[in-house]
Amino acid sequence: MNEAIFDHDTTDPRREIERNLRPEDWCNPVPDGRYNLAVIGAGPAGLTAARIAAGLGARVALIEANVLGGDCTNIGCVPSKAIIRSGRLHADMARARHFGGVAIEAIPDQALALDRVRKAQARISRSETAALLRAEGIDLYFGKARFADHRSLRVGDTTIRFARAIVATGGTLLPPDVPGLAEIGHETVETLFNRDTLPRRMMVIGGGPLGCEMAQALCRLGVEIILVQNTPKFLPREERDAAQLLSESLARDGIQIHLNTTATRARRTAQGKEIALSTGGDTFAITVDEVLTGVGRMPRIAGLDLDAAGIKADPVTGIAVDDFMRTSNRRVFAAGDVCGGYMFTHVADAAARLAVQNALFFGRKRFSRLTIPWCTFTDPEIAHVGLYADQAFSKGIAIKTYTVLMHEVDRAITDGEETGFVKIHTAQGTDRIVGATVVARHAGEMLNEITLAMERRIGLRALSGVIHAYPTQSAAIRSAADACVADRLTPRLRRVSGWWMSALRRAG
Amino acid sequence: MNEAIFDHDTTDPRREIERNLRPEDWCNPVPDGRYNLAVIGAGPAGLTAARIAAGLGARVALIEANVLGGDCTNIGCVPSKAIIRSGRLHADMARARHFGGVAIEAIPDQALALDRVRKAQARISRSETAALLRAEGIDLYFGKARFADHRSLRVGDTTIRFARAIVATGGTLLPPDVPGLAEIGHETVETLFNRDTLPRRMMVIGGGPLGCEMAQALCRLGVEIILVQNTPKFLPREERDAAQLLSESLARDGIQIHLNTTATRARRTAQGKEIALSTGGDTFAITVDEVLTGVGRMPRIAGLDLDAAGIKADPVTGIAVDDFMRTSNRRVFAAGDVCGGYMFTHVADAAARLAVQNALFFGRKRFSRLTIPWCTFTDPEIAHVGLYADQAFSKGIAIKTYTVLMHEVDRAITDGEETGFVKIHTAQGTDRIVGATVVARHAGEMLNEITLAMERRIGLRALSGVIHAYPTQSAAIRSAADACVADRLTPRLRRVSGWWMSALRRAG
Repeated sequence: MNEAIFDHDTTDPRREIERNLRPEDWCNPVPDGRYNLAVIGAGPAGLTAARIAAGLGARVALIEANVLGGDCTNIGCVPSKAIIRSGRLHADMARARHFGGVAIEAIPDQALALDRVRKAQARISRSETAALLRAEGIDLYFGKARFADHRSLRVGDTTIRFARAIVATGGTLLPPDVPGLAEIGHETVETLFNRDTLPRRMMVIGGGPLGCEMAQALCRLGVEIILVQNTPKFLPREERDAAQLLSESLARDGIQIHLNTTATRARRTAQGKEIALSTGGDTFAITVDEVLTGVGRMPRIAGLDLDAAGIKADPVTGIAVDDFMRTSNRRVFAAGDVCGGYMFTHVADAAARLAVQNALFFGRKRFSRLTIPWCTFTDPEIAHVGLYADQAFSKGIAIKTYTVLMHEVDRAITDGEETGFVKIHTAQGTDRIVGATVVARHAGEMLNEITLAMERRIGLRALSGVIHAYPTQSAAIRSAADACVADRLTPRLRRVSGWWMSALRRAG
Repeated sequence: MNEAIFDHDTTDPRREIERNLRPEDWCNPVPDGRYNLAVIGAGPAGLTAARIAAGLGARVALIEANVLGGDCTNIGCVPSKAIIRSGRLHADMARARHFGGVAIEAIPDQALALDRVRKAQARISRSETAALLRAEGIDLYFGKARFADHRSLRVGDTTIRFARAIVATGGTLLPPDVPGLAEIGHETVETLFNRDTLPRRMMVIGGGPLGCEMAQALCRLGVEIILVQNTPKFLPREERDAAQLLSESLARDGIQIHLNTTATRARRTAQGKEIALSTGGDTFAITVDEVLTGVGRMPRIAGLDLDAAGIKADPVTGIAVDDFMRTSNRRVFAAGDVCGGYMFTHVADAAARLAVQNALFFGRKRFSRLTIPWCTFTDPEIAHVGLYADQAFSKGIAIKTYTVLMHEVDRAITDGEETGFVKIHTAQGTDRIVGATVVARHAGEMLNEITLAMERRIGLRALSGVIHAYPTQSAAIRSAADACVADRLTPRLRRVSGWWMSALRRAG
């Protein structure tokens, strides 16, 4: 595919990112009267809100304390997916024999992989530069914002008055909860991608989505990984069998896995960083070169003077909003990670779209009505939408589940990508889809058909009538739908058609 | 992913395929009265028809002259996708530097790749074995079938009487139209995958879907490929820009491309097989070790004695069927490649489902109502559904097209898979989707969301409300939908919202 952009670009990506997302010579504008909308924070939620509002003719102030693009572009989705791609190539190369290649020892060039991460970031930063935002009519301020009163903000010495405001300051990483770790230092996603090379042996504490993604990608790039999770399975939120498949995949990649294990203490020794671990009463210690923690984030609300604007918030759960994304100040809305809950870029984007409509146009769009999918970008990917089986159970919804294993799917077999399944939950007695999990190499691309069906209340049986090009891995979705059709019709039809078939034989 | 099936399986895949799809010791059953349904041909259409009918309690005879699975399993989709996967790995490995690997010369092991093809076929054959069909209650006959009269068939000495029949004998490859080629011998997909290794230098004549797929895959596996196409572009049916992107990708892979060129003569020389080519008046000759032709197929109707049953057919266009898949014999239906038209496995499957319903249950399902997607599995894949721009034009449908380039899509950038686009045609003045083309590495998986929308008459604007997990390449579909929303609303909204924004500023 197109590689020109990466390979022949000799500019330092770090400098381009800075120039795009936080230009050194930026002059903040001078407010000219009240803004229709002030947006605090220029991550995914803030950028979406500001751009939509400006596109609709609103006068918009956008205030960013740090760099444009937020965690997504700078420390989260973008760099992680770039390094995951490098890891995926190496995993495939390690299996070259299986695909008809000569088995080769392909030594990863970690510096190259890390440089590629920053080049990807630089590329993506081009669509959200300060200059672009200005050209779209947005008044962009760099600086820390705080509320002066219910209807105005202060950025440095400047007062920004607004008719409506949206708080989209995102989240910050929680400090590590392992005694001693802060003292001896550790990596986070905020620092990891700035390295020029990777440590030889690293412990990843936390087996949530980001922990698993990073553990796998870095392991595939040659880092010896010890992955520690304090619960009995990875991805505590996901279906048990999905987490189990992931666990097996991580083990196959060569990750040393410690489930049900808690890191209790960290100290520096002559050999490196020694982490004491505890599991079921036993304790032991592992020494590594570096530690990566990714154990959760909390809303970023410090310094905003939310009280001055009458905005209620909690340090852990973030800014309190109603179903319309409105805070306790009726002129102020909030969107994205600062509201806690689902901390995903696409949720921030969806909430921001909704907040703009509700803030500026008397919209009454409800967040609770959104159909929200998500995906963990491990290999295989784990994509989900709607309810999990246990959620359905606790809501008192009886479900009937249709599962198709990827190793029954022709394209998964020819692709050698057979780990995974499509699992669709329907409300018992109907074909209404209440939730689905797809585990497959490209699960994130496959899920959208199901999300669309849920969003538009299309039953699972109807998906049986949707022709899928052969052979694709998505055919598994249709197979699940076929099973639903057979399941719902067979008892009655068998009786009727048995009779009918004899009649037809007699009549000819 | 799961590799156990391939790597540790030491049985000869050829023998397993034979055992599954054409058991040596098979004894044909003895008919016990009239069948509800006789199905001739056990490829994708015939297998689907027979299995659905048997599942509904019908007494079914299935007659296969050759091996079960048809072209799809034995010479078409399955082996081609398996070898494409090997080629894709090699292409990625050749770009290893770009993804953070040490640049390495990975020499393909062609014998291994070809063995893997047969192992994939063996795996897939396990879901359509003779024994399975028998267990499903189907009377399976191996032998050549011919119609005795309007209501019975002959297989060898056995007479098979039926209430309804479905002809699903598929197609055969057209003989090469290059003078001399038949004499000196050449490869087809029927023979290619049986080789133990690949030729050094090969000419592929015909730049349709299969020609392009094979040319690219074999080139990536180290075969020097000359690709000859007699029209000005590859994939004559596809959108011009899709064909152009493919052409560039094939060139980048190192294929020697001759467009607008006709092979006029073939002869054997001391150096190998010499093919005379003609382009715009010029003629020249290229010598290769082997020639692969894949120029079209024709319906397989010879020897069926269709006349005896009053079934009208044409040697080129195949068996004539109405919109209900019924032939000129009201008791006999046809499905799949034997009817000409769209020669795809998934179309054969869809037509067979429809034929069974219409044949056995007074169904009135129309083939013309189906929304049929298709996909060419090159790299990038080219997937399509609905109308092309020129088809819309010739039908007098004014269209408005929304295009998103993959190099604007975050996940395509992080994946280094930026060649391609999502292009959606809507009927002008509405958001009704009339057609779409997706060019992307996994276009086949991405298209289904659009197919579902078309099938259920969901407008493009509605897709803007479908949240896609970030970052996925399918986000391009939502971006196209967002553009449609902006496009349709902006002129009016801008007027109203400009006024409203001033009012809001004044009111505060």
